Amino acid sequence: MTKDVEVAEHHGGKDYHDPPPAPLIDAEELTKWSFYRAVIAEFIATLLFLYVTVLTVIGYKSQTDPDLDLDQCGGVGVLGIAWAFGGMIFILVYCTAGISGGHINPAVTFGLFLARKVSLIRAVLYMIAQCLGAICGVGLVKAFQSSYYNRYGGGANELADGYNKGTGLGAEIIGTFVLVYTVFSATDPKRSARDSHVPVLAPLPIGFAVFMVHLATIPITGTGINPARSFGAAVIYNNEKAWDDQWIFWVGPFIGAAIAAFYHQFVLRAGAIKALGSFRSNA
Amino acid sequence: MTKDVEVAEHHGGKDYHDPPPAPLIDAEELTKWSFYRAVIAEFIATLLFLYVTVLTVIGYKSQTDPDLDLDQCGGVGVLGIAWAFGGMIFILVYCTAGISGGHINPAVTFGLFLARKVSLIRAVLYMIAQCLGAICGVGLVKAFQSSYYNRYGGGANELADGYNKGTGLGAEIIGTFVLVYTVFSATDPKRSARDSHVPVLAPLPIGFAVFMVHLATIPITGTGINPARSFGAAVIYNNEKAWDDQWIFWVGPFIGAAIAAFYHQFVLRAGAIKALGSFRSNA
Amino acid sequence: MTKDVEVAEHHGGKDYHDPPPAPLIDAEELTKWSFYRAVIAEFIATLLFLYVTVLTVIGYKSQTDPDLDLDQCGGVGVLGIAWAFGGMIFILVYCTAGISGGHINPAVTFGLFLARKVSLIRAVLYMIAQCLGAICGVGLVKAFQSSYYNRYGGGANELADGYNKGTGLGAEIIGTFVLVYTVFSATDPKRSARDSHVPVLAPLPIGFAVFMVHLATIPITGTGINPARSFGAAVIYNNEKAWDDQWIFWVGPFIGAAIAAFYHQFVLRAGAIKALGSFRSNA
Amino acid sequence: MTKDVEVAEHHGGKDYHDPPPAPLIDAEELTKWSFYRAVIAEFIATLLFLYVTVLTVIGYKSQTDPDLDLDQCGGVGVLGIAWAFGGMIFILVYCTAGISGGHINPAVTFGLFLARKVSLIRAVLYMIAQCLGAICGVGLVKAFQSSYYNRYGGGANELADGYNKGTGLGAEIIGTFVLVYTVFSATDPKRSARDSHVPVLAPLPIGFAVFMVHLATIPITGTGINPARSFGAAVIYNNEKAWDDQWIFWVGPFIGAAIAAFYHQFVLRAGAIKALGSFRSNA
Repeated sequence: MTKDVEVAEHHGGKDYHDPPPAPLIDAEELTKWSFYRAVIAEFIATLLFLYVTVLTVIGYKSQTDPDLDLDQCGGVGVLGIAWAFGGMIFILVYCTAGISGGHINPAVTFGLFLARKVSLIRAVLYMIAQCLGAICGVGLVKAFQSSYYNRYGGGANELADGYNKGTGLGAEIIGTFVLVYTVFSATDPKRSARDSHVPVLAPLPIGFAVFMVHLATIPITGTGINPARSFGAAVIYNNEKAWDDQWIFWVGPFIGAAIAAFYHQFVLRAGAIKALGSFRSNA
Repeated sequence: MTKDVEVAEHHGGKDYHDPPPAPLIDAEELTKWSFYRAVIAEFIATLLFLYVTVLTVIGYKSQTDPDLDLDQCGGVGVLGIAWAFGGMIFILVYCTAGISGGHINPAVTFGLFLARKVSLIRAVLYMIAQCLGAICGVGLVKAFQSSYYNRYGGGANELADGYNKGTGLGAEIIGTFVLVYTVFSATDPKRSARDSHVPVLAPLPIGFAVFMVHLATIPITGTGINPARSFGAAVIYNNEKAWDDQWIFWVGPFIGAAIAAFYHQFVLRAGAIKALGSFRSNA
Repeated sequence: MTKDVEVAEHHGGKDYHDPPPAPLIDAEELTKWSFYRAVIAEFIATLLFLYVTVLTVIGYKSQTDPDLDLDQCGGVGVLGIAWAFGGMIFILVYCTAGISGGHINPAVTFGLFLARKVSLIRAVLYMIAQCLGAICGVGLVKAFQSSYYNRYGGGANELADGYNKGTGLGAEIIGTFVLVYTVFSATDPKRSARDSHVPVLAPLPIGFAVFMVHLATIPITGTGINPARSFGAAVIYNNEKAWDDQWIFWVGPFIGAAIAAFYHQFVLRAGAIKALGSFRSNA
Repeated sequence: MTKDVEVAEHHGGKDYHDPPPAPLIDAEELTKWSFYRAVIAEFIATLLFLYVTVLTVIGYKSQTDPDLDLDQCGGVGVLGIAWAFGGMIFILVYCTAGISGGHINPAVTFGLFLARKVSLIRAVLYMIAQCLGAICGVGLVKAFQSSYYNRYGGGANELADGYNKGTGLGAEIIGTFVLVYTVFSATDPKRSARDSHVPVLAPLPIGFAVFMVHLATIPITGTGINPARSFGAAVIYNNEKAWDDQWIFWVGPFIGAAIAAFYHQFVLRAGAIKALGSFRSNA
């Protein structure tokens, strides 16, 4: 307890430390290997993410195809697909968090850019690396599953029959909000310092957020909430419907990430600052 | 070891620190932004909880409807539904624990109020925010799934055929006891201080408690253990049977939470104090 | 690093602290409320364990009964049942670890008694509390599921057709070995002190050990690895076959726990002491 | 913060400590009981790994065999099998990490040997212990499941119909890369010291990596990514096709592990050193 008070005094009443906002363009970081290493890590992580998840989707559909007279209950199921997406995000965020921050998703990068956690140049290069990684990952699946890949929809995100574009867009916005809100909560420096009864297991709840959103919205859009994932599958599958719906999987996640950044920075954290203000004026 | 002893001496033989009981009405907290922020966080969290979970329920039932001649093994299954409820509680408790305490459930709020962890005014406002959030969350699902929402029961809690009201009430009481007992265990200040071999991963076991109870009681009541969840679904579904059974999903969880609060405060913690008393008198 | 060395010196070359072996009979502990509280906690935890898990088993079988013309894929499946057992152990060990040590299983109590972690009197009272709790838990399920309880086998452990008693006994021995070996590994004071890259998340791997063993041996014995669980179900179901096979579910787990205690204490830990001896003689 | 700086200064600008590379042959370690204890722990862990996972595979297939007219949805499913492999690795890495490092897989041992984390003699003895443990584990399954073992393929890894050897090899290479990359990330001393917001829960993400790869590649090769697992099953099943494909399950994992070791040591960690260099020259 005395220790806590001591720490709090060091920062003039605040027991945590907010890093300064990242500059829009940071020429300094371009000279460091750690920057390029981070871009490579995002590329590799997004490649592995799409490879494992789309392979799971195609494998599931091939195993349960009634035309092939196979065991219809034999596949991993929608639950297994949701695990594949959520579990991969868990391990990849865990592996890359110390190298690149573990975004693996342009919507996450966009949200963290809006909150000034990453520079503009880093955000743009991360997004390019993520999209290229996604294309390569789905490309590997197509190479491995040539006979099944096109037959089972290529893992592409499309609006399901019976849902209009507004519903799809709404599902992507809220789904991405859940994910990016969890990312902000998990990486908040205020929490790490203060709430010792909420240990910061960041990658696990972030992976679970992805798992949960997939359970809910696979029947509607196949669940994007990650523009690189939707883009990579669309490039390799190259189907008209996938391209027609593609905008939903960029506009929706970016709006959702922006709302999450706004909610965290202005509602939750601004409040923290005001509360501390009222506390100090009373003291 | 020496460090532990030192800490223990600071508190006169106790190596942990029990916060004083919360006042019934705390005028002070009404003047702070952190209070209103907490109410907003409860509203948003309960909205997201109901949105994701009820969307999963409706999506599952639409996918496996034999009348639609779809793949009957294609949905997430009851196991997936149980994961949706448990997993969402895991991530939402994780995200809101530092802001509002992460209740997301009037029964949890009621239990913590009985144990004097929150003030009366906070408890009432949390419950209102939770119920409003639940209504909005289910309302979003109905807006997105208009054609399926009413067809598949609206995610409302109802007593299944073949079970009487006493069984339903009992199932809700014990289920909520499991949840609120886990909440008390996870947030006990005595444990955080003393049992370093039981690290306090609070949100994960709380989410698992919800998951477990859903596995067990979905066949009986659809599993409430959260009056806001049952109320929100009943308001939007607005079906006579759902309203007739509604009292079960308020009385049961509140009784279960009260028993858990009693068990933790009087059996487990009072014992701790007595044990320390006997220890000190011997020393 | 320097800190580690300092700690190590305090203990004369050992950087961890082995508690002294528990006495066989400790009259002192009988005078403390914390002892009776621990027995109560074991009773309640085993009651909740059996209630949730057997309710899941009965609910699953009632949902997928072809005679009732229900959705055969609609239940939680064997995977859901395995999760129910593993997940309940996770949350109950988490909740009771600080109160009673979180045994919830006579085989675990027996293993820890052999390793002299608990006194004889504590071990006996724990086992009695566990068996009574299990009987009450299964009794609640029978009260709630009267029409289904007997029809679906009462959650009792029996040897499946086509397996002989030796196989069943072997499956119980190895399954309990996996569980008790995990318990010893998770609670080893040497690990807590030394291996900071293996943080001690004790309850989660213990729960997973139970989950894993259920996946593997449900087809053979229904998976006991917990004599209280098998005994409680046999008492309430009271079926001749369940009683005939009952000895397997006591002898198997006790042998498995004894082997795990031997493996941990004599192979893994004795080795540690010798290794330290050779290290010190060199230094 | 001040604490961090202090620690950093102790190491001359580096706040972490890289152990020196392990010697190729370390005569010293052959004289220590802790070395032989580690080999025993690898043997037991691999035995338990194969026993539980292959028993799950055989049990699943026997439960859902249409020829036996059983409930086709009654088994644990491919999802349950993937959980068995991933969950066992989680608990076994957790249990043996402090004893042997928790490899349980010749490909992991090979990757850590390439990165000079273990000596040659230790690597060779670990691999022999792992292979012997795997043979004994599968042997136990055959003894317990005599009537079903051969009928359901013995849990052996074979290339599925419709996939060529190149695809199988590629799937094994990338799958093992995912696993060994996670192992390197989880045990990196730099991370343990620096990234406090990414707590090192090593065994859980390693287990999840195995789970994820099984979801993706069970339809292609049955998923090896562990030469001891493939070898043990092949020895006991002793089927021509299993032996014909065996090389894939050694060459693939070893190549994947080598790429992961290269990626971690030369791309990710070499970059870290350069980044620190640029930081120090500026300071």
